[in-house]
Amino acid sequence: MFLTEEENRKLTQVGPGTPGGDLLRRYWHPIAGLHQLTDDAPTAHVRLLGEDLVLFRDRSGHVGLLADHCSHRGASLLYGRVEERGIACAYHGWLYDTEGHCLETPAEPADSRFHLTVRQRAYPVDTLLGLYWAYLGPTPVPPIRRLDVANYPVEAIMEMAFEANWVQVVENNMDGTHIGILHQATTTRNGTIRNTTRGIVDEIVSLDYEEVQFGIRRKMVTADSYVEDDPLVFPNMLRRITELSIKVPVDDTHTRKFVVYVERERNGHAGDQHPVDYYVMPRDEGKSGAGRYPAVNYRMDKLRYQNLMAIETQGVFAPRDNWHLATGDRGVALFERMILREMDRIQEQPEYDPIGVVRDPNVVIDTNYEFFRHAGGNTTGPQGIKVYSRPAVDGESRVPSEPALGRWR
Amino acid sequence: MFLTEEENRKLTQVGPGTPGGDLLRRYWHPIAGLHQLTDDAPTAHVRLLGEDLVLFRDRSGHVGLLADHCSHRGASLLYGRVEERGIACAYHGWLYDTEGHCLETPAEPADSRFHLTVRQRAYPVDTLLGLYWAYLGPTPVPPIRRLDVANYPVEAIMEMAFEANWVQVVENNMDGTHIGILHQATTTRNGTIRNTTRGIVDEIVSLDYEEVQFGIRRKMVTADSYVEDDPLVFPNMLRRITELSIKVPVDDTHTRKFVVYVERERNGHAGDQHPVDYYVMPRDEGKSGAGRYPAVNYRMDKLRYQNLMAIETQGVFAPRDNWHLATGDRGVALFERMILREMDRIQEQPEYDPIGVVRDPNVVIDTNYEFFRHAGGNTTGPQGIKVYSRPAVDGESRVPSEPALGRWR
Amino acid sequence: MFLTEEENRKLTQVGPGTPGGDLLRRYWHPIAGLHQLTDDAPTAHVRLLGEDLVLFRDRSGHVGLLADHCSHRGASLLYGRVEERGIACAYHGWLYDTEGHCLETPAEPADSRFHLTVRQRAYPVDTLLGLYWAYLGPTPVPPIRRLDVANYPVEAIMEMAFEANWVQVVENNMDGTHIGILHQATTTRNGTIRNTTRGIVDEIVSLDYEEVQFGIRRKMVTADSYVEDDPLVFPNMLRRITELSIKVPVDDTHTRKFVVYVERERNGHAGDQHPVDYYVMPRDEGKSGAGRYPAVNYRMDKLRYQNLMAIETQGVFAPRDNWHLATGDRGVALFERMILREMDRIQEQPEYDPIGVVRDPNVVIDTNYEFFRHAGGNTTGPQGIKVYSRPAVDGESRVPSEPALGRWR
Repeated sequence: MFLTEEENRKLTQVGPGTPGGDLLRRYWHPIAGLHQLTDDAPTAHVRLLGEDLVLFRDRSGHVGLLADHCSHRGASLLYGRVEERGIACAYHGWLYDTEGHCLETPAEPADSRFHLTVRQRAYPVDTLLGLYWAYLGPTPVPPIRRLDVANYPVEAIMEMAFEANWVQVVENNMDGTHIGILHQATTTRNGTIRNTTRGIVDEIVSLDYEEVQFGIRRKMVTADSYVEDDPLVFPNMLRRITELSIKVPVDDTHTRKFVVYVERERNGHAGDQHPVDYYVMPRDEGKSGAGRYPAVNYRMDKLRYQNLMAIETQGVFAPRDNWHLATGDRGVALFERMILREMDRIQEQPEYDPIGVVRDPNVVIDTNYEFFRHAGGNTTGPQGIKVYSRPAVDGESRVPSEPALGRWR
Repeated sequence: MFLTEEENRKLTQVGPGTPGGDLLRRYWHPIAGLHQLTDDAPTAHVRLLGEDLVLFRDRSGHVGLLADHCSHRGASLLYGRVEERGIACAYHGWLYDTEGHCLETPAEPADSRFHLTVRQRAYPVDTLLGLYWAYLGPTPVPPIRRLDVANYPVEAIMEMAFEANWVQVVENNMDGTHIGILHQATTTRNGTIRNTTRGIVDEIVSLDYEEVQFGIRRKMVTADSYVEDDPLVFPNMLRRITELSIKVPVDDTHTRKFVVYVERERNGHAGDQHPVDYYVMPRDEGKSGAGRYPAVNYRMDKLRYQNLMAIETQGVFAPRDNWHLATGDRGVALFERMILREMDRIQEQPEYDPIGVVRDPNVVIDTNYEFFRHAGGNTTGPQGIKVYSRPAVDGESRVPSEPALGRWR
Repeated sequence: MFLTEEENRKLTQVGPGTPGGDLLRRYWHPIAGLHQLTDDAPTAHVRLLGEDLVLFRDRSGHVGLLADHCSHRGASLLYGRVEERGIACAYHGWLYDTEGHCLETPAEPADSRFHLTVRQRAYPVDTLLGLYWAYLGPTPVPPIRRLDVANYPVEAIMEMAFEANWVQVVENNMDGTHIGILHQATTTRNGTIRNTTRGIVDEIVSLDYEEVQFGIRRKMVTADSYVEDDPLVFPNMLRRITELSIKVPVDDTHTRKFVVYVERERNGHAGDQHPVDYYVMPRDEGKSGAGRYPAVNYRMDKLRYQNLMAIETQGVFAPRDNWHLATGDRGVALFERMILREMDRIQEQPEYDPIGVVRDPNVVIDTNYEFFRHAGGNTTGPQGIKVYSRPAVDGESRVPSEPALGRWR
């Protein structure tokens, strides 16, 4: 038994006031695409860390994120009217600015100061990589984390939903060995598998997981000297090739994955603009039937459906007290220990900044995108979170050419 | 905080044995249209105050309301066969009359007196205004309340379902200010709103709520001397213009609204006959998506959808401990205080008749339909529940001409 | 009150560790048709007694039944790859044989002995009457019970699901009187019913239930000397005419009925082969609407829909503490007392073999199919579980000719 039932619950809870919810609230999370707020549709419903929220853009262009239910009598602000100064509840017109101040209560007497006593729960919003991001944690609010990949133009964004707790979705990344088994039929190099039992797992020469400054580094070396150094920016952002994959905890049993594909060259762009394409995977893509496993059936003919099956059939909360972890799961175990450790540190010392939080706005988290881009060899940088690359062979560039479908995955 | 969480639960529960359920059981409630029982379909399922019931008409024409599950082994009486003497369970033929007496148990020996020991839960049924009504409370059973509007022919009936507790649906009526905000775009007089923040709320000169003999009187005076005096016959019947709107508690989280439209003239009719039209609003009219908010989206282009949005997005139980009531909510506050007070009186003194119960079958509850009909001015009658009218101006009748869509609402 | 609420719960629970689950685990249960495992679809999901399981056939032809979730990290084995030696989890390739031994963990080091510490929950599988059967109980595993009807060719199999606890479904068989009421319109001999209240119940001259060696014998004699002796092989298999009807507890609130129709003559076959036809009744056949009663409506024009209505509208757990049993329910009462008694005996004495368990592989349970086949008269055999037959009259064979639709049923 790796975790007790109680530790497992602690590991996976994301709501307000839980240790997990406290930890996750120390980080900014993407919540919507920039295209989702328009003049015609200036509000969007957001569920994040178990909280129902409304994202809006007022007629002055300010973007805010407020608790869904109006402080007055609880009608949803999703149907609010945006005005110059903020958003007004459709029911009785209580008007809020992006900081949650109540500016007006139209039905109260002209000299009423009642609105001064009202404060709607409000969270800061920022933009990065074609997405709106939110911070639900305590002050002082840290700056949104800057990443090296954010300097490149965003090519496309893909959104995908999981009926599962967020930890399972990240664990699938901290687990290099499943690639050689689960994806063997869709990722083989030579087109045939000699032994389905072992798949292509024996092509992995070494596989290491190491805690580094901003998270976890996975370094995998294969039989033909190919090296993958996927960095996990703690707790939920993985850079692989040209993609940044972010797993957002919606609530205890739902996760939303945003995958941002950046371009390889700047081509004169400064980065961080609207993406060219924004793709939302339909809820029933890759599975049929209503409800949850075993009521639904999964397709197995694409890599992303294979992962969906593996993650969702573990259960919406995987019961880790029943698991049997082995040496191949050392990345998973490291990730879970780090989560539990950071939770404990926050509980003991509320002013503690957990791993990966950055206070200096000038710091850029280096996921070694430059190394990858130039693909000059197996490089390990000084900070730990490092290189994804492979040696150039025979003068041929063998960097994977499709952003969504790398060689191994 | 207006109510504690505990008071809120007490306010909203409707099941047997709860204070709210006890209070609501002192009143008759409409349960079905008269057209719903026919020779071909002589039974109908009814859910009222958290109880599953079967309404039926036997071959002698008697109408009864019994507990859904047969006393024998619990099969549904909805599939029972109606006969001369009552309804027989389809499973083993136990035959019940409209009072719940078991008249026969066919499989028992010929001389068996076992059926005399069986009693199916049964409730009295009566008819009024084109509807079947039921009384689920203690004896002595009060007469069904007579209303002035019941003397006029019923033009149409509309049924509509809410995924919300009944108190929220009535509160929307005890709340005159929302009209000027929520419905501003669909009810404007002049076609344009100068200021969406304030909508047309500033046209309200005065707005008063007063407890009166049978319930609550709302009196609203507008800038052009228009007067509305909507009477709420406690706890759940509102007369507005030519309509009587009745909110029936189905269970703690569902409400069914019956709106009865009566004609303005008797035209020789004695009243209380079958309506000409009976309209059941489809469950998905005005909203799209499955389940509950936020999984569903509401249309906002009709008054009734606007109300549906406001009521349902408060949550199936509005958490009133989070509300911030202001002076504009004094009607809501009065209504809730009256409910809680009447609950307490019944608990203290079971023989107490709560407000609005009428024992004298000759008393007619005067909702001042006559005043409205003649529309002669701003009149206040002696009993409190009174007048809906507006002054005739320039010899022109300005009484709203459409029953379903009054000027303000 | 026949049973207390607590006794009722005890009667109906089927999960691991409950008294009911312990009792039901002493018997083999059918889980799937033989046709359901093929080379192209070698796995099937099975839910039995509250456990989620995966049935599979490996490439050597061995059939196994394993716990659904892999011991490693819990992904479903339904998506496993079958190989020569067993089934390999799709996620990381842990390979299990039909006994649950873990043969290989591909991602572990070459010299790892870790797999020797892993054991997947596994249950024995056998075949009979065109079906796969499973045994989920303690060792020593009894042989699958042999039945006289199993010597005849299987003509067809029908599967049908109930949204109800299994006890209700069997009770419907231990209840001869409902036939004369519930099915009166679909089973009358003369085409007309004189009195719908009594249906054809008065044609029953005598109706007895008796505990016998392997279960319960129901003997019904009708006015025209027709005799039915339906044997219930405890706890859930009924032979009627040429059919064997088996009610399998899926979980506390779901039951799956398998009806096996055997032929009247061997015609050179040894029996127990694949059936000619396999029919799965669609979930929505006979009812419309989503969810459970009262959200669904039942058709009443076929015998099987009538039973579906009667069983499901009792509720997913019939609340027997509200029932009023009469003399017509003596078969139901006998059945329930036997279940509770056998549960208690197992709890007191775990090595006790409950009624109907057979240890001697040479014993054939005699449901008197031979007597029925020859239909020579009202015969009572020595063992109790006996004859279904009627006297030949006027030289005419009056044995019912349609397997699925006997005269009374």
